Amino acid sequence: MTEVFQHPLRVRYMEVDIQGVVFNAWYLAYFDDAFPAFLAHRGLVYSNLLAAGFDTQVVHSEIDWRAGLHWQDDVLVAVSTARLGRTSFAVDFETRRGGTEITCSARLVYVVVAIDKSGKREIPRMLADALGTPAPLRTD
Amino acid sequence: MTEVFQHPLRVRYMEVDIQGVVFNAWYLAYFDDAFPAFLAHRGLVYSNLLAAGFDTQVVHSEIDWRAGLHWQDDVLVAVSTARLGRTSFAVDFETRRGGTEITCSARLVYVVVAIDKSGKREIPRMLADALGTPAPLRTD
Amino acid sequence: MTEVFQHPLRVRYMEVDIQGVVFNAWYLAYFDDAFPAFLAHRGLVYSNLLAAGFDTQVVHSEIDWRAGLHWQDDVLVAVSTARLGRTSFAVDFETRRGGTEITCSARLVYVVVAIDKSGKREIPRMLADALGTPAPLRTD
Amino acid sequence: MTEVFQHPLRVRYMEVDIQGVVFNAWYLAYFDDAFPAFLAHRGLVYSNLLAAGFDTQVVHSEIDWRAGLHWQDDVLVAVSTARLGRTSFAVDFETRRGGTEITCSARLVYVVVAIDKSGKREIPRMLADALGTPAPLRTD
Repeated sequence: MTEVFQHPLRVRYMEVDIQGVVFNAWYLAYFDDAFPAFLAHRGLVYSNLLAAGFDTQVVHSEIDWRAGLHWQDDVLVAVSTARLGRTSFAVDFETRRGGTEITCSARLVYVVVAIDKSGKREIPRMLADALGTPAPLRTD
Repeated sequence: MTEVFQHPLRVRYMEVDIQGVVFNAWYLAYFDDAFPAFLAHRGLVYSNLLAAGFDTQVVHSEIDWRAGLHWQDDVLVAVSTARLGRTSFAVDFETRRGGTEITCSARLVYVVVAIDKSGKREIPRMLADALGTPAPLRTD
Repeated sequence: MTEVFQHPLRVRYMEVDIQGVVFNAWYLAYFDDAFPAFLAHRGLVYSNLLAAGFDTQVVHSEIDWRAGLHWQDDVLVAVSTARLGRTSFAVDFETRRGGTEITCSARLVYVVVAIDKSGKREIPRMLADALGTPAPLRTD
Repeated sequence: MTEVFQHPLRVRYMEVDIQGVVFNAWYLAYFDDAFPAFLAHRGLVYSNLLAAGFDTQVVHSEIDWRAGLHWQDDVLVAVSTARLGRTSFAVDFETRRGGTEITCSARLVYVVVAIDKSGKREIPRMLADALGTPAPLRTD
């Protein structure tokens, strides 16, 4: 069984709001930061995907927040492929405070597009290989 | 029939990424900006909710992106109550470019919490009155 | 005498930090937002500058903060040309809460570059005309 | 001679604009991120400063940009005390791409304030000790 990839980050002061917790929009920045790190860990440097003429776009997101993150919290963002389709795929994310407490869980759906803006493309082999066999973190 | 509330915004340069479209995280900022404007339009200034000891937190979001927004696009963010529960409620959002083209659709679920951080609260009358009768923009 | 151009904005929740005031980085976003509005007011739509092959880059900034801005503060960002050189120019900015209280004052220095990334250019006539006669807001 | 403290960061996709370089506002976020790391490296955990009743606020900044940072650039943010006054102090910052190329240089002036919002305070011993003997990175 493959271990789940985890991308480290530390909460920035700018990301915390009056309530003292990370403002919700930053989670999408966290996931976006963890996704290419996940691919690189699986052997695909994102610039090589771009060089091959492909890019990805997020078309759908579902996020559940269970607890707030605080300034300077050390967080691991867990990343795992949830579904592989023909032109789209889903990736699950969790923010794990101190590496264990799951404070937020999310699924993002991506489509593959041509970088010449000519539209959707089938998932290229290099990307499918990096995404690997789906192993969802979420059950829905 | 009530007209849907629409909050105007103009896309900032900072919000646009290398792909030339608004980066996904900013949509949560847009919705967060439109929500208190929606409540104010319905008669509830958010600071009065806080003064009464209540605040809201987003616990769930679902977002679907159909098209990208570009720098200096004029956007109307449509806001409508989708569901009213006992301690939680859902609000639907759409970003409408030029007031018509729906480029993004979303549902956010909020809970009401006490500002003394003692936990969830029932939706207070002042908030329920402002949220009004649910009229979802999304069908799911 | 020309009246100083003022660009309206309202402070977003996301921009306010734990201290309850706008985090400093957002001021550069405010100025960046006000600058093309200033040019448009003077007759130059920024996309026309780009279409002519020119872009601008900020190479220097000086900012002085006197007071914090709060959530939902209504702010006018005053903009005025401070200096016109051959390939660079300076613009002064002030954030005026309620249109009067100057909470922050800044000077940004821009250079004109070719959009084909071939380097600096002399300030084109269309831009010089829009910048107009310098009328600094700052004395340094 | 003391070695200059350097705080590592990697440029996020969200921080890069249409021009393909980090938008200027993010530099203030970078510096803000590096500052408490610098203090911690010198023995002062920022939460201990807060616990002692003190906080800091940026009242002035000067930034010079020489070159743009790109997505996924590995950057070291050099931090060094530039000046120590009675209630204010200055800190110099440099962003060093690949640890060597200085792409941006800055000086920020901070004041010490009471966290009960009663105003300015003299720099407390614990903070002065961490700031140490000034060793400016900038000459102005």
